[in-house]
Amino acid sequence: MKQNIYDNSDFFAGYKELRDNKLGLNEVIEEPAIRALLPALHDKSILDLGCGFGTFEEFALEQGAANILAIDISEKMLALARERIRDTRVSFVRQALEDFVPARHEFDLAISSLCLHYIDDVGALFARIASSLKPHGQFVFSIEHPMCTSLLDGWAKDHAENKRHWPVDRYFEEGVRISHWFVDGVIKYHRTIDTYVRLLANTGFQITALVEPRPEERQLAERP
Amino acid sequence: MKQNIYDNSDFFAGYKELRDNKLGLNEVIEEPAIRALLPALHDKSILDLGCGFGTFEEFALEQGAANILAIDISEKMLALARERIRDTRVSFVRQALEDFVPARHEFDLAISSLCLHYIDDVGALFARIASSLKPHGQFVFSIEHPMCTSLLDGWAKDHAENKRHWPVDRYFEEGVRISHWFVDGVIKYHRTIDTYVRLLANTGFQITALVEPRPEERQLAERP
Repeated sequence: MKQNIYDNSDFFAGYKELRDNKLGLNEVIEEPAIRALLPALHDKSILDLGCGFGTFEEFALEQGAANILAIDISEKMLALARERIRDTRVSFVRQALEDFVPARHEFDLAISSLCLHYIDDVGALFARIASSLKPHGQFVFSIEHPMCTSLLDGWAKDHAENKRHWPVDRYFEEGVRISHWFVDGVIKYHRTIDTYVRLLANTGFQITALVEPRPEERQLAERP
Repeated sequence: MKQNIYDNSDFFAGYKELRDNKLGLNEVIEEPAIRALLPALHDKSILDLGCGFGTFEEFALEQGAANILAIDISEKMLALARERIRDTRVSFVRQALEDFVPARHEFDLAISSLCLHYIDDVGALFARIASSLKPHGQFVFSIEHPMCTSLLDGWAKDHAENKRHWPVDRYFEEGVRISHWFVDGVIKYHRTIDTYVRLLANTGFQITALVEPRPEERQLAERP
């Protein structure tokens, strides 16, 4: 199933406000963590899967990327991205990642930020990403931590609404999780760390880093 | 601090009963999982860190291992191991893993089962293990999952003692965890998955597998 929740008006409004206010975990935790893992982008040919409104494209152009193919399923997100970024080095394409069929050996780097937990058959996508990379190409991606996708209800609280525990139940029960995030019915796919690592290894990727980013002091100060 | 909890009489009695009854997670989950990761042991020179009472040595000899250096801090565990295994291919050595200083490039394989969460400076130990391996040597180890060592209190239960959640709090707060396991004051060291992977990569290990073993149907039938 190809989900396009970002084109739901209520979802989009909520999400855009979150990102505009820089209150999301994207800016506070994900962005610094994934950028620390990136190779030098200068002169690189880059594939961005789930580009959203083009934050990465802006950064990669500043860094001198040669060209970027930026794919997203959401028309609303791409409209913002196109408005923000007018540069012939970036091609924005509206497509479900499930439909992405690359030319072979095209990119130096593939990137995907907080998107692949929306994809059911991620192993098939890993294979298409691998075949889209040049020899020694790199793939850097972030997902919601399986400790978060196993349940999607967040903190277990007591009767006075005090946070008591971060519950991680149903960890080994992989598959669909339906949650409320701005709107009802947001679908994510829970997979274990084991499964992600195995699928990557089976695809032929060599794993050089696995990071569980934590907020820095400065970030905690900005968003306690 | 070098902990020798296995030589505590009460701990030893409880632990031995658990293992004798094959009720521990060692037999039910850890053993099948780590054996599935092992290379062929025939003719291999093997280092076993935290050998306990020699379960692995028995298996490795059956598989035709050339020789095994088996290290443990506990006199009581080694006494059982020596009683069980009388074979010149195995050398049992009583030593804290913190004191292990290998000859260089000696072993084809290093193994450690459910032991390294007792070690404070595991990065230093990884480096000594790496230098003890031949070129292209392998290191296979298991630890308690960081989702277990982050707290050591197990299930969050309601007033009627029903299991409610598996709580994973204090995940990013690495360091000492003191628990009751047969006796008070058992010390384990909590580290994130991120930290284990980073220390291994920094040591020069290439990570080829990361497994979160789950019980098979048969195992669930044996221990529901």
